[in-house]
Amino acid sequence: MSSQVAVPSGTAASPLGLHRVIDPPGVLPQAATRLDTRAELWPDEVRVRLERVNLDAASFHQLRDAHGGDPRRLRRAVLDIVRSRGKMHNPVTGSGGMLIGTVEEVGPESPLGLRAGDRIASLVSLTLTPLVIEDDLVDWDGSSEQVPCRGYAILFGRSIATKLPEDLPVPLALAVLDVCGAPALTARVVGRYTSPTVCVLGAAGKSGSLSLAAARRAGAARTIGVVPDGREEQALARTSLADVVVRADARDPVALSDAVTKAGGPADVTVVCVDVPGCEGGAIVSTAQNGTIVFFSMATSFSAAALGAEGLAADVTMLIGNGYVPGHAEYALDLMRTEPDVRHLFQARSSTKQPRPGGSRTG
Amino acid sequence: MSSQVAVPSGTAASPLGLHRVIDPPGVLPQAATRLDTRAELWPDEVRVRLERVNLDAASFHQLRDAHGGDPRRLRRAVLDIVRSRGKMHNPVTGSGGMLIGTVEEVGPESPLGLRAGDRIASLVSLTLTPLVIEDDLVDWDGSSEQVPCRGYAILFGRSIATKLPEDLPVPLALAVLDVCGAPALTARVVGRYTSPTVCVLGAAGKSGSLSLAAARRAGAARTIGVVPDGREEQALARTSLADVVVRADARDPVALSDAVTKAGGPADVTVVCVDVPGCEGGAIVSTAQNGTIVFFSMATSFSAAALGAEGLAADVTMLIGNGYVPGHAEYALDLMRTEPDVRHLFQARSSTKQPRPGGSRTG
Repeated sequence: MSSQVAVPSGTAASPLGLHRVIDPPGVLPQAATRLDTRAELWPDEVRVRLERVNLDAASFHQLRDAHGGDPRRLRRAVLDIVRSRGKMHNPVTGSGGMLIGTVEEVGPESPLGLRAGDRIASLVSLTLTPLVIEDDLVDWDGSSEQVPCRGYAILFGRSIATKLPEDLPVPLALAVLDVCGAPALTARVVGRYTSPTVCVLGAAGKSGSLSLAAARRAGAARTIGVVPDGREEQALARTSLADVVVRADARDPVALSDAVTKAGGPADVTVVCVDVPGCEGGAIVSTAQNGTIVFFSMATSFSAAALGAEGLAADVTMLIGNGYVPGHAEYALDLMRTEPDVRHLFQARSSTKQPRPGGSRTG
Repeated sequence: MSSQVAVPSGTAASPLGLHRVIDPPGVLPQAATRLDTRAELWPDEVRVRLERVNLDAASFHQLRDAHGGDPRRLRRAVLDIVRSRGKMHNPVTGSGGMLIGTVEEVGPESPLGLRAGDRIASLVSLTLTPLVIEDDLVDWDGSSEQVPCRGYAILFGRSIATKLPEDLPVPLALAVLDVCGAPALTARVVGRYTSPTVCVLGAAGKSGSLSLAAARRAGAARTIGVVPDGREEQALARTSLADVVVRADARDPVALSDAVTKAGGPADVTVVCVDVPGCEGGAIVSTAQNGTIVFFSMATSFSAAALGAEGLAADVTMLIGNGYVPGHAEYALDLMRTEPDVRHLFQARSSTKQPRPGGSRTG
C-alpha cells in the first residue's frame, strides 16, 4: 500500500492527517474518498483498539431505511463503506459518527496526552478517521447506531479525544460527548450579551437540553424551550431548564414567531438544535435585531439562511455551529453531572429508543 | 385570485409579505412555490414599474447551459418561471437576482421612505418578490444576466430598496449593490480585532475587492488577496488593495494554507468570496485560532464547514454571510466612489464579459 501514498512512512506527518490521504491527492482527510489505514504509526499518531463505533443519527437512519432494517444487509453496508473508503463516511449523508476504544500505541511525538491503556472517545468525525474493522460485526444486531466491533482507528496530531469518565455510564457519556460542542458554543455566545433572552429550538433533545442548561449558567435572563409535540412538552416542563416551554413547529415561521413572542421573545440568542430541514426562516423571524442564531442542526441550508435573513432585512449574526470549542467535552460532562434535569431528559430519551429531532451532532 | 389568498385585500398586511403567499400556505415568500402578484397594494406595500431584472449569476448560467444559449428558449424559460411562481425563483439553483425600476405607487403605510417616480434598486432577492412580466422579453438577447423588461414588482414593508445614485453609471451601481452586504459585514467583523491580518479569497472579484477595501478601512494591519490565476493576479497587483497578492487554488487546503502563511498568515479574518464549492477546508486551515471566517459564497456547504472545523480542532467563528447589514448600500457605493482601485477592477471585469468567481451574491 505504501506505493500509493505520497508521504512515505518515516517522514514528518501532517497533524491534519494529509499523509493518510490516498485519493484524491492533496485534499483533507474528510474530503478524501480513500484513506491509508496502515496500522504502522507516523510519529505524532495514536492507534486505538476499537470497542464500538457510534454511527451518527442521519447516517444510521439512511442505512436502516435503505436496507429495510435487515441486520445482515446493514452489516454488509457498513463493512463495504469502511473497507472501500478506509473510514466510516456515509456517501449519501456525508456524515460519520464517533468511536470509543482503548489506546493501543502512542507515537513518540503525539501531542494528545494519551497513554496506552486509556479508554477514550474520539471527538472528531469518523468521516476523517482511518478505520479498520476486523470482524464481521456479528455483535451488532442493527437495531441501534451503537456498533460493537473489533478493529482499530488512527488519530492524528490535531485530532481530539477525551478519556471516558469513570463516574458516568458509557452510553450516557457517549450521548453527551456526541453533542458536546453545542453547550460550549452556546455559553460563549450567550456570554456576549447582558441578561439575554435565549430560545432553544429542539429544547428537549440532547444538544437542546444541554444548551438550555449552558445558557442559564452563562447568564441568560430568560430561557424559552421550543418543542414539537405534547410528549416533549411534558418532559421539558417537568424540569426547570426553560422558563417557558412552547410547543410549535419550528418549520412554520409564523407560528414559531408568534409563540416565541408570547413567551417573552424575540430572542437575543436562538439556538437551532432541530435536525429537520426548513427551520432557517423561523429562527430568523424569532430573533431580535442584533441577535445571534447558532445553527447546530446538520440539516441547515446555507443559502436558505443567507438569503432568508437578507430577504427579511434581519440584522442577525448567523453562526455555523462549529462542533469544536476548547474544553467542550469537560464542560458538557460537568453539566451532565451537576444538572439533574439534563440527566433526566437524556435518560428518558434513551429509554424510549426512538429517533428524535435534536439528536446526534457529531457527523 | 382573491379566493386563493388567506388574507383578503384590505386587512393588515404582513411586513414579511406572508399575505402574498398562495402555496404552500404559511411559509415565508421565499419558501413559497407561488405568490399572489395582484397589482392592487396592501397598505404598506410599494409597486415598482420594472426597467430590468438582473438574474443572479448562478441562475443565469444554469439557464443558459440548460437551453444552449438559445435566446428564444431562454426568454421562454424565464417567462415560464415568473408566470408559474409569481417570482423569479430558479427552481434548480434556488436563487433569483435583483431588479431596478421606478416607483409607481406607494401604499399609505409603507415604511420604506420611497416616493412615486424614484428610480430604485431592490436589495431583497427576486426569490421572494412578487413579479409580473408584461412583455415577451423581446429586448433581451440572452447574452447577459441583465434582462430589460416591462412589468411590475411588489415590495413589502420589510423589503429593502435603495435609490439609484445619480453619479454612477447604472450598470456599475447595479454591480456594487448586487454584493453590497459583503463589505459592510467584513468591516464589522474586522473592527472587532486589533490590527488584524485579513485574507480575502476571490480578492479580484466584485465582493472580494470591495471587502479588501472595507477591511483596510476598518483597521486591517495586513491584507492578503488570494486569486486563482495569473490574469487576476496581475489585475489585483496593479492596485494597492492588498498588501500581498497570492495566486492559489482555494479548493486546495494545503496549497492555500502554505501560500497564506508565506504571505504573513494565518489570517485573523478570512473572507470567502469564491463562488465555487469546496473552499471550506482551505479557509479553515488558513485562519488562526480565535479567528473568524465570513462565508459569502453561495456555494458554501454548511456541513463541510461545521464538520471540517470540528475535524481540525479549529476554534474559529464561522459566519453565514448575511447579505443585510444596515447601511450596506450606502457604504458600498461610498467605497466605489472613493476607492479608484475598486472602480478599476469592476470596470476591467465588466469589459471582459466573462463569468468569474466572486460574482453575483444577491440570490
